Amino acid sequence: MYQLNFCAGPASLPESIYQALSQMVLNYHNTGLSLLSFSHRDQLFAEINNKIKQHLRTLLALPESYEILLMPAGASAQFAAVPINLKQNGRALYINSGYWAAAAIKEAKKFIEVDTIEGVDNVIDHIVDDYDYIYYTENETIDGVIWQKIPETNLPLVCDMSSSFLSKPIDVTKFDLIYAGAQKNIGLPGVTVVLIKKALIENIKQKAIPAVLSYQAMQQADSLYNTPDMFAWAAMELVLADLIKQGGLDVVAEKNARKAALLYEAIDQSKLFSNKVSLHNRSPMNIVFQLPSDELTAKFLNFADSQGVYGIAGHRSVGGVRVSLYNAIEFKAVEQLVSVMREFETLNA
Amino acid sequence: MYQLNFCAGPASLPESIYQALSQMVLNYHNTGLSLLSFSHRDQLFAEINNKIKQHLRTLLALPESYEILLMPAGASAQFAAVPINLKQNGRALYINSGYWAAAAIKEAKKFIEVDTIEGVDNVIDHIVDDYDYIYYTENETIDGVIWQKIPETNLPLVCDMSSSFLSKPIDVTKFDLIYAGAQKNIGLPGVTVVLIKKALIENIKQKAIPAVLSYQAMQQADSLYNTPDMFAWAAMELVLADLIKQGGLDVVAEKNARKAALLYEAIDQSKLFSNKVSLHNRSPMNIVFQLPSDELTAKFLNFADSQGVYGIAGHRSVGGVRVSLYNAIEFKAVEQLVSVMREFETLNA
Repeated sequence: MYQLNFCAGPASLPESIYQALSQMVLNYHNTGLSLLSFSHRDQLFAEINNKIKQHLRTLLALPESYEILLMPAGASAQFAAVPINLKQNGRALYINSGYWAAAAIKEAKKFIEVDTIEGVDNVIDHIVDDYDYIYYTENETIDGVIWQKIPETNLPLVCDMSSSFLSKPIDVTKFDLIYAGAQKNIGLPGVTVVLIKKALIENIKQKAIPAVLSYQAMQQADSLYNTPDMFAWAAMELVLADLIKQGGLDVVAEKNARKAALLYEAIDQSKLFSNKVSLHNRSPMNIVFQLPSDELTAKFLNFADSQGVYGIAGHRSVGGVRVSLYNAIEFKAVEQLVSVMREFETLNA
Repeated sequence: MYQLNFCAGPASLPESIYQALSQMVLNYHNTGLSLLSFSHRDQLFAEINNKIKQHLRTLLALPESYEILLMPAGASAQFAAVPINLKQNGRALYINSGYWAAAAIKEAKKFIEVDTIEGVDNVIDHIVDDYDYIYYTENETIDGVIWQKIPETNLPLVCDMSSSFLSKPIDVTKFDLIYAGAQKNIGLPGVTVVLIKKALIENIKQKAIPAVLSYQAMQQADSLYNTPDMFAWAAMELVLADLIKQGGLDVVAEKNARKAALLYEAIDQSKLFSNKVSLHNRSPMNIVFQLPSDELTAKFLNFADSQGVYGIAGHRSVGGVRVSLYNAIEFKAVEQLVSVMREFETLNA
């Protein structure tokens, strides 16, 4: 039996939300119906849809000039949707920040010409008028890095915030399109939040867009073009309501910063564990660290497993250790993990 | 509190499956982890993936020459995926059988030239070699009609079986591609089963295919190109195992035929209710019927609601009454519905 879950996603949810969802599967709000088996055209579901949008507007102080779309098929679908929808002249600038940016670039190249640069600070040198948009990934889950600075540009700015969305306040007005898969900080796989300037939707000229990837089709249908993943929507509604109840994104950000500081401090003080990310770009969401050898890494992962810790093996592409501290992780859980790390270090000193 | 749920989808599941899913949300197979919060790369999930494929091969005696893909975003995504993947010469033939066929045609026209015909029997007169495929919708949920006959053709035959899949045995070998959204007979929205000849996948020539819609990308990734809707996959695994336990598709088909016969008989014997579909094309899945006036229809729907009956208003595009009798609906539930109908008729004689 695991006691601590630091999975990189699908991530943990608050225990109260597991309880609520478990109950809703049996009987949704005392209707006698399962949440899994009523119509997405029902008023019951319209309420979930409306509440999600209200919660997001509350949490982000979202201007009316932005549309909220709830899209199917995960953030990977947006790797294609962004170039397919936003293509105008046919070129875009991508900041190549790590694994997920590279995946987005690979997908985008099917549909648009892509120029790539390495860092946010280089954007300003690369501004040419004919880029249809500039794209970056705020937090890289596998590399454990985050961009603290927002690129400066007058061109449409697109940001993949899948793994950092609602972990801290966002100045939405600096962006034209933000998207985030839900299974990190705001729920379950199967739904992706897209915040997009209404003017950008109006300006879409491409016609051959699969409807499930089309911002115009989803806007017209109030995100109900097809049957959505209703369970994931209901989970998101509960998560967003909980974030509001906690006090909003300032409170959430402070909690997340404390959790990350505790773990990075433990790593920095250790002689066994090390993190190679520059201080300024250390992700508070995904903390990646190494041990001196593959053998010790495997030994540590086994030890952690034996102590009831789940989900901290590094991504298969990079190895090492990765601890994900999304919103639902409690400070106490990080303290417990640090104890496990210290115990392992003592045993292996 | 509703007691009877005849929703057209997301449809009812067996009560034992609600119970199992509710428990898995809290603690998956005594791991201490929620089904909602473990990695889709975990062995725990690989088992779900493998079992789904085993169950489908068992239920359908599926030849090895067919691939099983589990795709995101619902059957509507396949409206686009089919033409985008299968386009070769650039023309396809669609049988226009009703609401969903029309939706598929509208979407396909974005990507391929479409010829349309009205009935299965007309296919043979329209065979020209340069159609990339022939497409039809087996069961039309809104019109309440089903095709009993499979079109005869040597060209690739594609069938949308979303609302009839696994409600009866299927001679898969007559098709090159079958797809079905899960939320009718086999689970929840968020996952679509695609059965496709491996040779057809190999033959795909298009390059600019969004990966989440790409049969080649999904085949290469064992359907795990991106984080799937794990909860919907787990639900499907349970539903398929239950169909096997019931005795397979012959048993399921007999049960479904008995349910439909009972309801159609009640309609045909009634002076108040009427069904206009020709006997041969009456759907056993979606039974659509009318009352003499909109007033009486509304009165009946209110009466049924007061008797704890959910989900029988006709689709907003056609009105009337629609009762969906997917696999999970018990014969007893149809008997109870017929009682409600008879009581209403007596009260309004």
